[in-house]
Amino acid sequence: MPAPKVPKVSKVPADLDAWLSKNDSRIFDELNEFLRIPSVSARSEHDADTRRAAAWLHEKLAKIGFTAETIPTAGHPLVLAEWRMAPPGAPTVLVYGHYDVQPPEPLELWTSPAFDPQVRDGKLFARGSVDDKGQLWIHVKALEAQLAVRGTLPVNVIVLAEGEEEIGSEHLAPFVEQHAKRLACDAVVISDSSMFAPGIPSILSSLRGLAYFEITVRGPSSDLHSGMYGGAVVNPALALAHILTTFHDKRGKIAIKGFYDRVRPFPAAVLKGMKKLPFSDAKFKKEVGVKALGGEAGKTTLEKLWTRPALDVNGMLSGYTGEGAKTVLPGLSMAKVSCRLVPDQDPAVIERLLRAHVKKFAPAGVTVNVQARHGGKPWAAELDGKIFDACRRALGAAFGRQPVIVGEGGSIPVVGDFERVLKAPVLLVGFGLPGENAHAPDEWISVDNVRRGLRAMAMLLDEYSA
Amino acid sequence: MPAPKVPKVSKVPADLDAWLSKNDSRIFDELNEFLRIPSVSARSEHDADTRRAAAWLHEKLAKIGFTAETIPTAGHPLVLAEWRMAPPGAPTVLVYGHYDVQPPEPLELWTSPAFDPQVRDGKLFARGSVDDKGQLWIHVKALEAQLAVRGTLPVNVIVLAEGEEEIGSEHLAPFVEQHAKRLACDAVVISDSSMFAPGIPSILSSLRGLAYFEITVRGPSSDLHSGMYGGAVVNPALALAHILTTFHDKRGKIAIKGFYDRVRPFPAAVLKGMKKLPFSDAKFKKEVGVKALGGEAGKTTLEKLWTRPALDVNGMLSGYTGEGAKTVLPGLSMAKVSCRLVPDQDPAVIERLLRAHVKKFAPAGVTVNVQARHGGKPWAAELDGKIFDACRRALGAAFGRQPVIVGEGGSIPVVGDFERVLKAPVLLVGFGLPGENAHAPDEWISVDNVRRGLRAMAMLLDEYSA
Repeated sequence: MPAPKVPKVSKVPADLDAWLSKNDSRIFDELNEFLRIPSVSARSEHDADTRRAAAWLHEKLAKIGFTAETIPTAGHPLVLAEWRMAPPGAPTVLVYGHYDVQPPEPLELWTSPAFDPQVRDGKLFARGSVDDKGQLWIHVKALEAQLAVRGTLPVNVIVLAEGEEEIGSEHLAPFVEQHAKRLACDAVVISDSSMFAPGIPSILSSLRGLAYFEITVRGPSSDLHSGMYGGAVVNPALALAHILTTFHDKRGKIAIKGFYDRVRPFPAAVLKGMKKLPFSDAKFKKEVGVKALGGEAGKTTLEKLWTRPALDVNGMLSGYTGEGAKTVLPGLSMAKVSCRLVPDQDPAVIERLLRAHVKKFAPAGVTVNVQARHGGKPWAAELDGKIFDACRRALGAAFGRQPVIVGEGGSIPVVGDFERVLKAPVLLVGFGLPGENAHAPDEWISVDNVRRGLRAMAMLLDEYSA
Repeated sequence: MPAPKVPKVSKVPADLDAWLSKNDSRIFDELNEFLRIPSVSARSEHDADTRRAAAWLHEKLAKIGFTAETIPTAGHPLVLAEWRMAPPGAPTVLVYGHYDVQPPEPLELWTSPAFDPQVRDGKLFARGSVDDKGQLWIHVKALEAQLAVRGTLPVNVIVLAEGEEEIGSEHLAPFVEQHAKRLACDAVVISDSSMFAPGIPSILSSLRGLAYFEITVRGPSSDLHSGMYGGAVVNPALALAHILTTFHDKRGKIAIKGFYDRVRPFPAAVLKGMKKLPFSDAKFKKEVGVKALGGEAGKTTLEKLWTRPALDVNGMLSGYTGEGAKTVLPGLSMAKVSCRLVPDQDPAVIERLLRAHVKKFAPAGVTVNVQARHGGKPWAAELDGKIFDACRRALGAAFGRQPVIVGEGGSIPVVGDFERVLKAPVLLVGFGLPGENAHAPDEWISVDNVRRGLRAMAMLLDEYSA
């Protein structure tokens, strides 16, 4: 990775800044409206809400002057909005985001209700605040600022928002492939990630991929009395526990045969840059609320999170889990298990390897089934070119300091699809922050980051067209 | 164990038999009423139902001529009913049973609703049918038969029914201790167990004890995004799985240090008798629905179930267990774990050993908490004396064959308390059957066993007073 060309920190154009200041409360009021819609894509009982969120977004994009369209899919609809009145020769930017959100459970751990946005200590709390409604909103309002102040945009813009990001983006890649010509662009811009730390704007250079599975262990054909059968019948919960413990070796490496075969080491320059970032294990532990960290021995925390694969249990269920003591020998147990992947691991290959591993370690007396849920390939950016330079300048102006290059442990599977199909560089510039609880109770986005993000993303269009 | 003195098979007295036949449909109608009350002691939302079941039973006992009383406790009430008009010198029998039932979940696995009794293929299906309402009902109606036909009972009878058997019988032992004089008796009779096989009446010689725990593993202070944190933060579900797998060694023995120290080998005669019982592993596997059995290497299935301790997971929960895929790194995981104990293991000692074990094997990066739920001591009978001989004759008459002596893997903790406090022998004579799903969906009792049980228990009073 070449050292980034560091431009002189310029200023956010005064006209955009003034308009954004003047419209600040309306911008947040509208965002709150968006956040109040419980568009949980994973839950069919929320399908009407998910459609409502799409319609809401459609209307807002149309209102600022975009030609908007809601495109049905076999799942949740896409919202596609276009503005193509830039001067001849101007480039085209595609802004991608998602209007669906994670399930809010466990509800009892939210300080304020998940779908009742509230600001405390400069943080806007709500499911979807940072992932991704709040970040998508930054782009919509940056576009509105440009159009309101200048009456035009310096570049052509396509906004593409989906409602299935949290459940695997099943219908997005096929849509992009089928409409590659219509979606043709010079750069893709996505804000669905986090800054390294408060005040440190960040550009993402890599994403981990995902391979998600559900492992079901069936023992006796029904739940049994643990007194009458315990000691002779293989317990499906213990069998599952046994399988789960075979996934890692004692050094914290994943023990699935062939798992690391396709792992490509990160460029030395990226690893070196990573070591310079102001990161403290002690602070990280405090933030997370643990006394010790885990994972692969001999790697730094940032290496583990950004550059190395991981395997986690996301959920586990067996037998009686209610109040009191029920003496049952369960007939079933289940674990949701997912692998985070790094370039060039492939979810399909990982699925094959995991299936073979589970088959090998499944104890006698139970039947083990592996169901693949969804996957996404890992990704790494080149970080070269006009859109990246423009972004460095815009972030520098809005945040008052140059961005750093970071990795990201999470997955945005569609990033690789955009790059592959549209043959355009993908800029990942996020405004979340560590501890934002993206998939957990009390999800939040920094109000200050939203304001600076609005300015940076409005200015980005100027810089990119300059 | 001495070989049982086998009396000649006599006949059920014709007057009792005739009355029971004539009143058959009413007996079952009333039992169905009893079964329709969802007296789930473990669930506070069912407290009113539990009280209703006690009141219902109270009324039925009063109606047949007993002096009944409902005795409040800090938990669910006791129902105590007495009939003390037997001729001078007649012995006193205490019949114990319980009117509370296990939670019915998972509801979707019941063929007919748990609290809507239905007969299919000679089986009466309902939660509580065999455990223990149906078996308690056998005694109530046997007493009614005697009183209806003869106008009197040949012995004094105390009926004591509790509503907390499924949650640990917390208030029963203190009550028995405080009222030992009032409850003084010559024999305790309990029907809360099963026959060895259809047509083979059985007397229980041993029960396993119970030590029940809830193990909670806390990792990060809230659920985290598994992408952003996975690989560096210890996963509480994986940590729990690790702890659970340390409980057994490779030969299926429990690997908790000192666990077997107090295990007293069963008498050779009992083990020998056990080997003569018509038991087939193939049939057992088919009944349970598994292809292979587990547990301690080198022991027969009956040895494992009746004479050896066991450790099972009764429930397990962590993270997201709903529909779809949620990429969460859970903040918490939980397992309900219970040990079945054999003479002379002590639940309090086992608790201490298990706590030490969990402490030793808890991984860094998580906090592990063990909460003891409830326990009960194991028990073994001497099988000598008048009540056992009377029971052999009554079972022989009602079932047309001599009873066998069996062990039982389940626990009835109060058995040991009765023996200790009342200094009376405890006869355990049960009318359940293998596969009865006592703590599982589709619990049932054999209608034929209820009918034969009614006759045997009515006749038992004659034989005992003879």
